[in-house]
Amino acid sequence: MATRLGIDDMIGACADLDEAGFWSIECWGGATYDACIRYLNEDPWDRLRTFKSLMPKTPLQMLLRGQNLLGYRHYEDEVVQRFCQKSVENGIDIFRIFDALNDLRNIETSVRAVRTAGGHAQGTISYTVSPIHTTEMFVDQARRLQDMGIDSICIKDMAALIKPQAAFDLVKGIKDACGKELRVHLHAHATTGVTLVSLMKAVEAGVDCVDTAISSMSLGPGHNPTESFVEMLEGTGYTTKVNQEKILRVKEHFSEVLGRYSEYQSKVIGVDTEIFRSQIPGGMLSNMENQLRQQGGGDRIKEVLEEIPLVRKDTGYVPLVTPTSQIVGTQAVLNVLMGRYAVLTGEFADLMLGYYGEVPGEKNPEVVEFARAHAAKEPITCRPADLMKPEWQKLRSAALALSGCNGTDEDVLTYSMFPQVAPKYFAERHEGPRNLGKDPLTGASETHPPEGHQGIITGPITYSVTMSGRQHKVTVAPYQ
Amino acid sequence: MATRLGIDDMIGACADLDEAGFWSIECWGGATYDACIRYLNEDPWDRLRTFKSLMPKTPLQMLLRGQNLLGYRHYEDEVVQRFCQKSVENGIDIFRIFDALNDLRNIETSVRAVRTAGGHAQGTISYTVSPIHTTEMFVDQARRLQDMGIDSICIKDMAALIKPQAAFDLVKGIKDACGKELRVHLHAHATTGVTLVSLMKAVEAGVDCVDTAISSMSLGPGHNPTESFVEMLEGTGYTTKVNQEKILRVKEHFSEVLGRYSEYQSKVIGVDTEIFRSQIPGGMLSNMENQLRQQGGGDRIKEVLEEIPLVRKDTGYVPLVTPTSQIVGTQAVLNVLMGRYAVLTGEFADLMLGYYGEVPGEKNPEVVEFARAHAAKEPITCRPADLMKPEWQKLRSAALALSGCNGTDEDVLTYSMFPQVAPKYFAERHEGPRNLGKDPLTGASETHPPEGHQGIITGPITYSVTMSGRQHKVTVAPYQ
Repeated sequence: MATRLGIDDMIGACADLDEAGFWSIECWGGATYDACIRYLNEDPWDRLRTFKSLMPKTPLQMLLRGQNLLGYRHYEDEVVQRFCQKSVENGIDIFRIFDALNDLRNIETSVRAVRTAGGHAQGTISYTVSPIHTTEMFVDQARRLQDMGIDSICIKDMAALIKPQAAFDLVKGIKDACGKELRVHLHAHATTGVTLVSLMKAVEAGVDCVDTAISSMSLGPGHNPTESFVEMLEGTGYTTKVNQEKILRVKEHFSEVLGRYSEYQSKVIGVDTEIFRSQIPGGMLSNMENQLRQQGGGDRIKEVLEEIPLVRKDTGYVPLVTPTSQIVGTQAVLNVLMGRYAVLTGEFADLMLGYYGEVPGEKNPEVVEFARAHAAKEPITCRPADLMKPEWQKLRSAALALSGCNGTDEDVLTYSMFPQVAPKYFAERHEGPRNLGKDPLTGASETHPPEGHQGIITGPITYSVTMSGRQHKVTVAPYQ
Repeated sequence: MATRLGIDDMIGACADLDEAGFWSIECWGGATYDACIRYLNEDPWDRLRTFKSLMPKTPLQMLLRGQNLLGYRHYEDEVVQRFCQKSVENGIDIFRIFDALNDLRNIETSVRAVRTAGGHAQGTISYTVSPIHTTEMFVDQARRLQDMGIDSICIKDMAALIKPQAAFDLVKGIKDACGKELRVHLHAHATTGVTLVSLMKAVEAGVDCVDTAISSMSLGPGHNPTESFVEMLEGTGYTTKVNQEKILRVKEHFSEVLGRYSEYQSKVIGVDTEIFRSQIPGGMLSNMENQLRQQGGGDRIKEVLEEIPLVRKDTGYVPLVTPTSQIVGTQAVLNVLMGRYAVLTGEFADLMLGYYGEVPGEKNPEVVEFARAHAAKEPITCRPADLMKPEWQKLRSAALALSGCNGTDEDVLTYSMFPQVAPKYFAERHEGPRNLGKDPLTGASETHPPEGHQGIITGPITYSVTMSGRQHKVTVAPYQ
């Protein structure tokens, strides 16, 4: 549902969200940009401007994959700089910047670019569990982030692996090492069921901010419920600034919306603690089962689950998060089906040869040799983006050649990050946003905002409207 | 689903549950006895003996409503004594005994009877939140339970109201007042989303045992997931004795079973923190909305929600749990529709006049007067059961007159507690257990254990089989 929810179904909650007293609202970046152009025929930049106009009081936040931006490869520095600049111009205040390997060279350019553009650069620790990932190792990373000049730190636990004591130790360790003034945030998904307790322990250790989701959109693979977090602090000496009446209205808004998206809702509604053992996020497991079945090895999932920790060890214990979870998982499947490292994927070879960056631990030198032989490439130790040539002009020319491209830097960035998806999107953009929600009774889908939402627009919103190939800037405001 | 799950679908999990290392397994009493005879055509006593034979190592636990047993009125002491005796004989080891008003006179007889019969009597605090319910008040209740001679204490939080700090303070308060040797258990539902954190705080305060449910049957209005509780303790210095391999198998067993009971699953899958304000459990709210709609006041739920705390105050702040939640809720509906206390239910009058026992606080004397006038009864201050005449022989005669009654004390107890349901059940018992689960694909229901479960019976099980009106004792054992 995170990648299918249309802007129509968010607008009605914005005024209350903006008044609720949040430190920030994460509303852009990550997979949502991709979803806008792939499924919703929405201009992601229009969406961002809509949010900014409807939520002028609360800082808007995005998730940025460092040198990957929102795409799946490294970009040359100029592209990164332009993306950060445009994101600030269009409304983003806080940038949470991470790298899947925790190689800080992969976030340096975006941190600098965000600060130059006047944004808040939040440096991120991709949390994982392994024999080498100690509290000390993460605290050292925090210190290096501080030296880089970040404005705050986030511990990002995308797989819900952080247990209460670990959360306490890590937050306290960072505060002790970096000073109390440095803001520390904790982002922990709810999948394993333990992380609301971890948020409590993080609070006791001095965390400044934690991530939650409104209860009607919470739990399962999502976040812990905002309302439960607010309530649980009673009597502890800690409190939040959240206005409970406002968030009750937000809850009710999304309770209603939910019914129209039932086909996109996660089937994971309880908790999954097997993640602690398999080390891979829940969604990844079903992907691997599909891969196995296609290769006629449907009964070998147990072997694959035993292979994953071995492959991960050979990589130097990379955190398992997009894209490393897919790279390690796929290689483990191949090892089981074909024999260990008899066949290597190109991505796995690149990972072993340094083309994603520096891994946290020691790589298995034998497997590095396999990778070198397989890919006929030499290992690198520099920052991967240092090998790249300037590419902005080339990307710009390619984008402008596409029918429907409006010539803005924003459109060039869309093409740069999603070259496969952008052409179709540019061509169809004039049809306007698609709402994939369906009336739960009639099954009918709506392309216009449901009734009752029209009156909720409180300020002017500017749309980019393309008619007969020409782009028009149209501002819509409530009739006074 | 708690009141629809058939014994066939539990048997397959018993061996693993018994080996998992739990302090006890709650598997009988509460609403399950009623469900056996009302929906499942199962003899509750047969079910208990089945559990005992399949789980010989782990103490079996039940929930007992003190002088109400498992019914909805007070019973005379001899009935209570016979029930406790028979429950021990048939396999119950631990009796968790509570009274909805926390009037300890209502649990004295059953505590004594359980101990006489050789069982473990766990005295219970029905947890609630009100201006008069302080930690001191509950600690004082714990002290009085200890003086009564109970074997352990349970804090029972049926509405998921206990917040982390309150849990810490209460457990610590009881341990300080009653001594570290007295076992303290915490039973907290998950409905509001905060109580796994409360379990953590209770552990820090020295709690001896907490209640959880296997993850595939957890959360929503149920309990916190066992696996998450076990995992979250890592590194804290606390641990459990739970065998994770065994509980993984239990989880998988019930994951499969769940699909067959989808029509009975709770619609509450997220969290509900509005309970903290309305003070009434989630299920009760929809009941009251139905009552209001039937009376043509469907739009007045907000007024009712504001009325409930006032009515509750007039009762002297009774905990809201069956039956007091229904009594207070219904009276609040009547007050809104007819004018405050213009009409009283008989149950509300009885509550105000002392016929359910002593309430925790001061009753509103004016409302007591209304109740006296309405019910034409005098208030009482004695233990309600003291007013009752011996009734066992009368109940026995009435039960034995029913077609299909097998003449045992167990059958007399079934009739005593459920006089409306027992006649039909006795008449139909010979048809054997009904399984209400349905094949999710075909919609077909099964009356026999699903394939694959047959081999799981590890010890002999004795059934009571009635053919042509004559009862036979049949023992089934695995073929060796």
